[in-house]
Amino acid sequence: MRMSNRGRLLVLSGPSGTGKSTVVRGLVQHSDRLRLSVSATTRSPRGYETEGVDYFFLAAEEFRRRIVDGEMLEYASYNGNYYGTPQDAVDAWLDEGYDVLLEIEVQGALQVKERRPDAILVFLVPPSMKEAEARLRGRGSEDDATVRARLAIAAGEIRQAIHYDYIVVNHTVEQAVEDIGAVLRAAHLSAEAMEGHLENLLAECPL
Amino acid sequence: MRMSNRGRLLVLSGPSGTGKSTVVRGLVQHSDRLRLSVSATTRSPRGYETEGVDYFFLAAEEFRRRIVDGEMLEYASYNGNYYGTPQDAVDAWLDEGYDVLLEIEVQGALQVKERRPDAILVFLVPPSMKEAEARLRGRGSEDDATVRARLAIAAGEIRQAIHYDYIVVNHTVEQAVEDIGAVLRAAHLSAEAMEGHLENLLAECPL
Repeated sequence: MRMSNRGRLLVLSGPSGTGKSTVVRGLVQHSDRLRLSVSATTRSPRGYETEGVDYFFLAAEEFRRRIVDGEMLEYASYNGNYYGTPQDAVDAWLDEGYDVLLEIEVQGALQVKERRPDAILVFLVPPSMKEAEARLRGRGSEDDATVRARLAIAAGEIRQAIHYDYIVVNHTVEQAVEDIGAVLRAAHLSAEAMEGHLENLLAECPL
Repeated sequence: MRMSNRGRLLVLSGPSGTGKSTVVRGLVQHSDRLRLSVSATTRSPRGYETEGVDYFFLAAEEFRRRIVDGEMLEYASYNGNYYGTPQDAVDAWLDEGYDVLLEIEVQGALQVKERRPDAILVFLVPPSMKEAEARLRGRGSEDDATVRARLAIAAGEIRQAIHYDYIVVNHTVEQAVEDIGAVLRAAHLSAEAMEGHLENLLAECPL
């Protein structure tokens, strides 16, 4: 098949308190052409987690081998465990024509951009920091110090957002999902992605 | 106001037989944020044409002065007359936050890209050359030699389409209008266009 039928890699990041996971759910429900990438980790599965659905659970030795052999699109270590995106599953979907969504941190997103310059990086932000704070407090599970720490981390992440391709404000889930949908739709219409169609047209033309 | 509220310049080209004018009509009806640029020309007005609506009708001397003084976004001469886009009207709309649509030839589009690298160039193509031929013949007003000449010109234009940012196939007017709508929506979400929102967020953050 032509490049134009290949899927696109879509990376979504955003600080906590932006409603990112709701937007991800909306995106996946919204499109039957979009697949959500499954991360790999070396941490132990929790009781409700399923291999290959929530995570690919790997031994640390195997995870390190994949890093060294360039089989991880991005990775990070956190709390003594590795987390990352195995590229074989992603590439299989892209080849089948699916767009693949990676919901990952800023560090990982910039690694992906380095390895795959055609990846589309979208950063989701709250309408205001006040709103982000209200969402964090609304969860009710975090004390004041934790909320303030999260907001400070959020500010640090927002400072990196300028390295992304697109910034989407999460005013409402519907609008954010439509915004990201427009970004993906436009990406499939780039002159590069459409080169195949142009060639087909020219092949029809008499010299 | 911040850059993010400024409109975007959208340039649409496409060979004859692609249904371009119907798509332009659809686009303008579809969005109350989009204005259609009015061209200037030195040719005489026809009976049904209104100054400032169909064209700005200018004397050749005045048109040449504007070219020399850099007041034309693009221009061409055709059949002994000048045609072009006066940039003052375009910029006034962009400043007011309107997106501005220029429906112009390939030559003019490339001039615009040169002067305004942030202009979005969209090239509209038919699903197939067969389809373009059928549309040309469907008009009923052109003989076989004219249709073949137009198709040859179309092929030449399609060869230039790779210099555009986006290629939209006109399968149906609705789909083409939505595709171009997605391109515009995405353009307003670029990290550059959204810099103002990021700055506002960071201004809210404690150091």
